Amino acid sequence: MIGVLEQQAHLISGLARARGARLVLAESCTAGLVAHFLSRIPGASDWWCGSAVVYRNATKTAWLHIDADSLADPVIGPVSAPTTVAMTTGVLAVTPEATLAAGVTGHLGPQSPPGLDGVLYVATEFRYGEALRRATVERYQLSSQLPPDSPFTTLRLHRQHEAALMVLRRLHAVLAAAPSPQ
Amino acid sequence: MIGVLEQQAHLISGLARARGARLVLAESCTAGLVAHFLSRIPGASDWWCGSAVVYRNATKTAWLHIDADSLADPVIGPVSAPTTVAMTTGVLAVTPEATLAAGVTGHLGPQSPPGLDGVLYVATEFRYGEALRRATVERYQLSSQLPPDSPFTTLRLHRQHEAALMVLRRLHAVLAAAPSPQ
Repeated sequence: MIGVLEQQAHLISGLARARGARLVLAESCTAGLVAHFLSRIPGASDWWCGSAVVYRNATKTAWLHIDADSLADPVIGPVSAPTTVAMTTGVLAVTPEATLAAGVTGHLGPQSPPGLDGVLYVATEFRYGEALRRATVERYQLSSQLPPDSPFTTLRLHRQHEAALMVLRRLHAVLAAAPSPQ
Repeated sequence: MIGVLEQQAHLISGLARARGARLVLAESCTAGLVAHFLSRIPGASDWWCGSAVVYRNATKTAWLHIDADSLADPVIGPVSAPTTVAMTTGVLAVTPEATLAAGVTGHLGPQSPPGLDGVLYVATEFRYGEALRRATVERYQLSSQLPPDSPFTTLRLHRQHEAALMVLRRLHAVLAAAPSPQ
């Protein structure tokens, strides 16, 4: 899986340069793993600003201005489509030079809330100008068991890499579909 | 090396709980790798807030209020003792509930500035109250060649894990030396 993650990061690097895009991340469950794979690409600072790894709810609010009431809300909560989009919107707001953000939240387990084990949300948001944004959010279900051929020893660690791969694939897809600069 | 990184993260978890400390990170060259190893510990959100992965200079300024003139200064620059301490001070300022910050900057190569290849700075800063801080900063020299027994294929990736280990060891050392709560 490591090779696939590296390959996706390379594709993103090429597309980000071709599109003139500048990326920024807001990570919760992947906890810096997406950032790590982008940093494996030489010269990544040309097109990648950084990653706000917001592991605690209070950090989501302090750094990205995520509404504390939404995080405490039993229906919305920290792992949800609205929170994940709020993370991309928030990280774009605090990173003036970024034009594309990806955000990720999920329950990697063990001890996930009932019905939410392995649930993952990935949001992406383009900023074309002050008034023009385009955000998308996808929901995924991560592996329910550790695959026999996994390079990892725990389901949690396998899922964390799986989640990082989903984020990189979404970034790749939205960059591939984005218009090239004139 | 992965096992040693995991072991250090476990030791930090135990000490952070024993000391009642709450940690936050500001990472440049390690780019989320320290965060990733803390996140491998179950329940890490009890004592770990997150990590500001500030890869570009503009992101260091936007997120952590690092002085842009210092970053552009040929003598100070992004990889230096003052910048690394400014990162711990900055990340504590934006994370009200954190009591201990670690910051890291370095040149992993290839194409480091002359005389700075493999140079690493690790800062830690305790906040005991509004008026009482204690910061330390250490300078290290990372491996000059890829060791034959390294699990990694490039010197850059080996050094990035080496750097993450230095950060975890510093956090372990300062937590071990910190007073227990009364």
